[in-house]
Amino acid sequence: MTESMTEPKTGLTAQCPTETSAEPEQRPGDGHEATMLLERARAAVDPVLRAAIGSLPASMRRIALYHFGWEHADGTPAGGGSGKAIRPALVLAAASALGGPTARATAVRAAAAVELVHNFTLLHDDVMDRDATRRHRPTAWTVFGDAGAILAGDALQALALRLLAEDPHPAAPAAAARLADCVVELCEGQHADTAMERRGPGEVTLAETLAMAESKTGALLGCACAIGALYAGAGDADVEALDAFGRAAGLAFQLIDDVIGIWGDPLRTGKPAGADLAARKKSLPVVAALTSGTPAGAELAALYATPHQKEDLEHITLIVERAGGRDWAQAQAADRMARAMQEVARAVPDPEAAGGLLALAEFVTRRNT
Amino acid sequence: MTESMTEPKTGLTAQCPTETSAEPEQRPGDGHEATMLLERARAAVDPVLRAAIGSLPASMRRIALYHFGWEHADGTPAGGGSGKAIRPALVLAAASALGGPTARATAVRAAAAVELVHNFTLLHDDVMDRDATRRHRPTAWTVFGDAGAILAGDALQALALRLLAEDPHPAAPAAAARLADCVVELCEGQHADTAMERRGPGEVTLAETLAMAESKTGALLGCACAIGALYAGAGDADVEALDAFGRAAGLAFQLIDDVIGIWGDPLRTGKPAGADLAARKKSLPVVAALTSGTPAGAELAALYATPHQKEDLEHITLIVERAGGRDWAQAQAADRMARAMQEVARAVPDPEAAGGLLALAEFVTRRNT
Repeated sequence: MTESMTEPKTGLTAQCPTETSAEPEQRPGDGHEATMLLERARAAVDPVLRAAIGSLPASMRRIALYHFGWEHADGTPAGGGSGKAIRPALVLAAASALGGPTARATAVRAAAAVELVHNFTLLHDDVMDRDATRRHRPTAWTVFGDAGAILAGDALQALALRLLAEDPHPAAPAAAARLADCVVELCEGQHADTAMERRGPGEVTLAETLAMAESKTGALLGCACAIGALYAGAGDADVEALDAFGRAAGLAFQLIDDVIGIWGDPLRTGKPAGADLAARKKSLPVVAALTSGTPAGAELAALYATPHQKEDLEHITLIVERAGGRDWAQAQAADRMARAMQEVARAVPDPEAAGGLLALAEFVTRRNT
Repeated sequence: MTESMTEPKTGLTAQCPTETSAEPEQRPGDGHEATMLLERARAAVDPVLRAAIGSLPASMRRIALYHFGWEHADGTPAGGGSGKAIRPALVLAAASALGGPTARATAVRAAAAVELVHNFTLLHDDVMDRDATRRHRPTAWTVFGDAGAILAGDALQALALRLLAEDPHPAAPAAAARLADCVVELCEGQHADTAMERRGPGEVTLAETLAMAESKTGALLGCACAIGALYAGAGDADVEALDAFGRAAGLAFQLIDDVIGIWGDPLRTGKPAGADLAARKKSLPVVAALTSGTPAGAELAALYATPHQKEDLEHITLIVERAGGRDWAQAQAADRMARAMQEVARAVPDPEAAGGLLALAEFVTRRNT
């Protein structure tokens, strides 16, 4: 159900609860600023990532280079496509917001470590979820087998923590401990997700679905921001505020992503219409509908208990909406974004300094660029 | 092919190349000293391991507690059986050999980290190898599914590196970097093993089989000893000597383990006779036989290219021996143990100080206790 934020798919502006009629050029969340931050983050961390992956022994290196989109399956060079670098950009933006360009420059290695952790979880999640496509290419396990993808993921986690172990910055040990804690939370979130997908439509609560999404998607965005704050020498309260900012933005992203997964334009999302519903995924709007106590919710539960029939999809889409799933998800996303704004304002009162973080948060939830 | 050193199975004294006619009571490798060191290591690291695993969220904690033998599958307490603690004992013995009891006391957390890494690799290897039994119990993936075992393994790797990230000892960052490098080497070794098992009997060289065994079994024993040396404040040369000691002892262990896997007494090994041969495992004595250039080696290659038939096993056992597989493995094991002794003598000239390391090395290769 949860989605990689690195997929180059586009969202639907009109459906985004954070979208307003203000001129985009005048807002901190202006897509151009976010795009620039993402490009700068990619340029900063790629040399570190390439050096780290280049240090791997041959088999692990080959699988990692394929996964990052830097090589084809036959080992010939490929033109990239290793994702949007949202997490490294958050590390660098948080360091910059609280410590200026000097702090940003010292946090590049940590930003690469966060990106390695993200990619380790993608490699493993794809094996567990049997997902065959990632970034428009066959997933690593389909090319190198389950063992290859599991082992390459293990190696990337080790590389991430090695980058921090070798970092002389005084914040590195605290960042490593935080990143390790985050890995544990990501594991618990993925486990909850796989367990929930096996349960019946009436056996899943909204609270546990939200908790799962926070662990699976919010935790690493929060961790990225908190690590940036640590590298800026921030105090505990500011570090926790940045963590809460990233978590709230991550949950808003997941809510919007789930909305797009049901009501998005397949031409823009790159996924067939209704794929999540056809797979009977218990995404956030669906669980909101299932637990709505409405007649439409009861009808949805009955339909979800039976296997997919193609002609159902339009009807199911309609009853999720009728049961309030779409409205709930959009309102929740707006709430989470408001919370994210509050948290960042607490730690970074100067709006100009906070601009990069806000731009990235709006970028991931707006997804119209 | 490679074996967990934590299995409470017993070897065959008479087949061990390091066994002599000397009185066991008078030798540094006396089994009683090793047993005492293992028990002390288990007692020292278990509280740290239990606290670390106790900090995991519910699902990950439950799988980890099962894997360590501390809980049954239903979550009720179980009586242990979490292995022999050879790797933690090596960390503590190395610290003690180079830095005395003070260094040993500071290295307990690092010893627990090494044990967590070992158990993370066991969880993942069992998934990849489809091994159904570990420490006389169903493996974690058979109880909690592949995703549960993969995720619990991921969480244990994170816990290991978190223990070191939170350790204020000045050696902790170097130990963490070394442990992360070791994880990468373990991954490459496991990958080589799975890839080799898919290849034909004529397509595997002895050199790559030895390299695989060193990565899969030697690397973590070497890393354990090197980390102990780091916590004793040892210089680079001594750290590398201890690493080489552990690697050599680990390879000797693997050679003996492979010999036992073919010629061991099923009553003592706990495995059916000829199980490795029946599964057409390319263990070290088998590859030595296959690449021996002898008529028996050619006959073995032909037999190995066909599926197992029960009546073959006795004959295959005989031709592996006739092709020199057993003699080669025993001579190699003796060479590696001699190398291990040289390395430890270089770093720890005082035989009394080196006694613990030697006792553990002889224990794992003798395996008669």
